[in-house]
Amino acid sequence: MSTDPTTRSTDTDAHAHASVEAANTALYAAFEALDFRAMEALWAHTPDVVCVHPGWEPLSGWPAVRESWRAIIANTGYMRIRPSEVEVHMEGPVGRVLCIENLYTIMGAQAVHSRVAATNVFRHTPEGWRLVLHHGSPISSEAGQIPETEPGLS
Amino acid sequence: MSTDPTTRSTDTDAHAHASVEAANTALYAAFEALDFRAMEALWAHTPDVVCVHPGWEPLSGWPAVRESWRAIIANTGYMRIRPSEVEVHMEGPVGRVLCIENLYTIMGAQAVHSRVAATNVFRHTPEGWRLVLHHGSPISSEAGQIPETEPGLS
Repeated sequence: MSTDPTTRSTDTDAHAHASVEAANTALYAAFEALDFRAMEALWAHTPDVVCVHPGWEPLSGWPAVRESWRAIIANTGYMRIRPSEVEVHMEGPVGRVLCIENLYTIMGAQAVHSRVAATNVFRHTPEGWRLVLHHGSPISSEAGQIPETEPGLS
Repeated sequence: MSTDPTTRSTDTDAHAHASVEAANTALYAAFEALDFRAMEALWAHTPDVVCVHPGWEPLSGWPAVRESWRAIIANTGYMRIRPSEVEVHMEGPVGRVLCIENLYTIMGAQAVHSRVAATNVFRHTPEGWRLVLHHGSPISSEAGQIPETEPGLS
């Protein structure tokens, strides 16, 4: 579903790969629409789900994860969120997604763009791919480039 | 290997579970010892590995991940790092670990304790469990408790 030209892939199971990427796209569509029901439907409702929102303590288990999304969605008035640099890696019954969340919010009269590094892990279930892990971390605005490897060290 | 009383588990494959937890313990032992060779040996050296250090841009592929650890270890003089609240979830050939990294560093004359929420994903390989994803995010010192679910919303 993504038409982002920066989307890359490294696995060979094209169908599962596309399904996981579609689930990832649906996640951000639900979040941007502040649609709590859609967000609920995307998650596995199991004790082993994990969610780390940027700066938050980790949350474990569906009740805590669900409550966090309820609170976030209830307290967000406007937001645009666009994933970029989406990478999908298949690992048996699990699809791992790495992406950048580009968040656009309004603070005072200013539009603010912030970037979050996100890991999303989807599990294949009879009902489709369901989120079992979301981990988002703020990217420092000072984050720079890593120097090249020193050839002497190998 | 962990004797942390807060360690919890939710899967039934006790052997794989223990092996993944041991790999996770080894990860933090290598980091605390600033042992680059041990850190290298714990990772899968493949294009699909992913690493997000706290505040950093995501890194993809073994060369970039390797270089980041080389730079971090080369630039760290003293550190104690103790995982706590370790949770292991098995997902077929993959073990997901969620834990808190308790970091103790020295800034000026002060000991500083900081906390990082970490997701570590290990893949089962013929050589053992190898890290394919590490995602660490700083926990805000203001991070608080999530309110209880409102009974009216279900």
